[in-house]
Amino acid sequence: MNKHGGYFGKDRDSAADLSANINPLGPPKGVVELIKSMAGGISMYPEIDGISARTSLEKALGTGDGSTILGNGAVELIYLFARAIRPKNVLIVQPTFNEYKRAFEMYGSNVESFLCTEENCFRPNMYALAKRVESGSHEVVVICNPNNPTGVFTEAKDFKPLLDGLAKNRGILFADESFIDYSLGESLIGNIENHDVFILRSMTKFYSLAGLRIGYGVGHRSIIEKMEKFKEPWTVNAFALEALPLMMADGEYRKKTLDFYKYEKEYMLESLSGVKGLDPVESRSNFILCRVEGNRAKGLDEHLKKRGVYIRTCEDFYGIGDGYIRVAVKKRDYTDRFISAAIEYFDQC
Amino acid sequence: MNKHGGYFGKDRDSAADLSANINPLGPPKGVVELIKSMAGGISMYPEIDGISARTSLEKALGTGDGSTILGNGAVELIYLFARAIRPKNVLIVQPTFNEYKRAFEMYGSNVESFLCTEENCFRPNMYALAKRVESGSHEVVVICNPNNPTGVFTEAKDFKPLLDGLAKNRGILFADESFIDYSLGESLIGNIENHDVFILRSMTKFYSLAGLRIGYGVGHRSIIEKMEKFKEPWTVNAFALEALPLMMADGEYRKKTLDFYKYEKEYMLESLSGVKGLDPVESRSNFILCRVEGNRAKGLDEHLKKRGVYIRTCEDFYGIGDGYIRVAVKKRDYTDRFISAAIEYFDQC
Repeated sequence: MNKHGGYFGKDRDSAADLSANINPLGPPKGVVELIKSMAGGISMYPEIDGISARTSLEKALGTGDGSTILGNGAVELIYLFARAIRPKNVLIVQPTFNEYKRAFEMYGSNVESFLCTEENCFRPNMYALAKRVESGSHEVVVICNPNNPTGVFTEAKDFKPLLDGLAKNRGILFADESFIDYSLGESLIGNIENHDVFILRSMTKFYSLAGLRIGYGVGHRSIIEKMEKFKEPWTVNAFALEALPLMMADGEYRKKTLDFYKYEKEYMLESLSGVKGLDPVESRSNFILCRVEGNRAKGLDEHLKKRGVYIRTCEDFYGIGDGYIRVAVKKRDYTDRFISAAIEYFDQC
Repeated sequence: MNKHGGYFGKDRDSAADLSANINPLGPPKGVVELIKSMAGGISMYPEIDGISARTSLEKALGTGDGSTILGNGAVELIYLFARAIRPKNVLIVQPTFNEYKRAFEMYGSNVESFLCTEENCFRPNMYALAKRVESGSHEVVVICNPNNPTGVFTEAKDFKPLLDGLAKNRGILFADESFIDYSLGESLIGNIENHDVFILRSMTKFYSLAGLRIGYGVGHRSIIEKMEKFKEPWTVNAFALEALPLMMADGEYRKKTLDFYKYEKEYMLESLSGVKGLDPVESRSNFILCRVEGNRAKGLDEHLKKRGVYIRTCEDFYGIGDGYIRVAVKKRDYTDRFISAAIEYFDQC
């Protein structure tokens, strides 16, 4: 199971939590008001398949009827995809979010890795990836874009060889775009009509609603249909179903969020350059992977914890090891607390 | 997929919905206040495995550490059990909630039925059931107690032959006690230490929180451990995790609810006796299965719908057919609207 998704200790309110990639601006006001207004009426079952929310989502995305599926967070859909498609062979672009491997193995898939290395700044060579797919027998290729925890983003146009390669084998591209809102890049959503593509989206990171559990998938109708057969009923709670259309319509919140990240990510990067033991990897997401000099991620983490600063160590990500940490871009005071504690650590060593 | 869990039409606010078995008193006040107070802070991930809520639950139930597991509604745990245990052969006491069959078949189990018949008022003969288990090779027996949709309750002491029979084959008893709070009967929870028993509980029916999604399982530690291996992360939302201990502690709400049902169920039964086309089955739950004269459930349902009254027809329950409806005990005005519309229907015929 994934290591954590936020800090839960006794000092949780006073801690500077840079471990979870949640928008620190907090949830959209409209959603908070909605939840309060719905609280007294929570007696009713949520709509069994969330059809009203899906219809509204399909309109907002401009995709056709039956092109979406909702999840109790994006994670439900990773597991649902794995058990509905049940591919014999899966290729996962690594290092990445470790629920993919667990999900596919849980349902009997043979999981191979396409490893992006430190030497190439964790950037996937899309031609090599396409070649591997063409010569293999992978029914599914998983890529997270931007990737977690590396922050690497691959442009939509660069997916062409991979899509062509997959088409030859009738394979499916599973693209996790949970962090795409931050990337300012183009989505692969334009490919769902003509290719076997499934795109995963999370509403809870960008909209700061991780406790609520809401994500969605959008894909080729044949994939969505297969997933529907295995979908469990009532998985998305009533608050999440009602909140989804509100979020899709809230352009102001999106703008405010992107403005915030623009400045605070720059600030974090500048501050990181003042820490002699840390080396940031270029990121198109709302978090930054940092190489820790001398593989001292564990020591740094312990030092930070004592000062109430929580980060994500990366030893459980396939192909990273203990030389890296991931820090989420948060409000300036958290960044400052992290930076000064990190400087302190490397000064001591 | 289950037919429905509440009515979702355009006139949902003015409709008399007797289709879903939800406590009409509405959610406990403390939980509503909790949700409102948490709404602004929903940014954080729920605890990945809900360990704080589980610990509190285990204390309240008086069961040992590691004896419980939480679900995004009770339904999550039906599917989780099926994929974690993956029994070759399952015996389901029917007619009952139809997610069991779907869940086990989804994961490749061979599902057999132990059918309780109309002739025996849908009451299971526990000796015959034990005999069937002893002579068969069922790794799991599923029984819902009180049963949905029949309302039949089997006393804890009457499970002894079945438990003995299962023990011989090292089989597991899966007892769905989602409606046991209404029955005033003894739970099978006392058996989890010494038998392979898994008990399912729903918090959302009795506590009127179906939109929130919270249920739990309690069972022999070896079963819970197996389920943990297949548990998906963050399935239970943050509101549900915080609400659970509040509900367990709210004795006042429980008393108020049981008082309400005592009188309103009696009222409904008396009123039903005035409808010449309906014949209620004795129920130990908060709903009543009624035989409809001349198998006219569908006609009655259509008549009621036109008058804004929604009930549960039962044609999709295995072994019932179209001769029955299920009505939930609700507030008096709903009961009265149902009864007078039903009288009208049978007068017309």
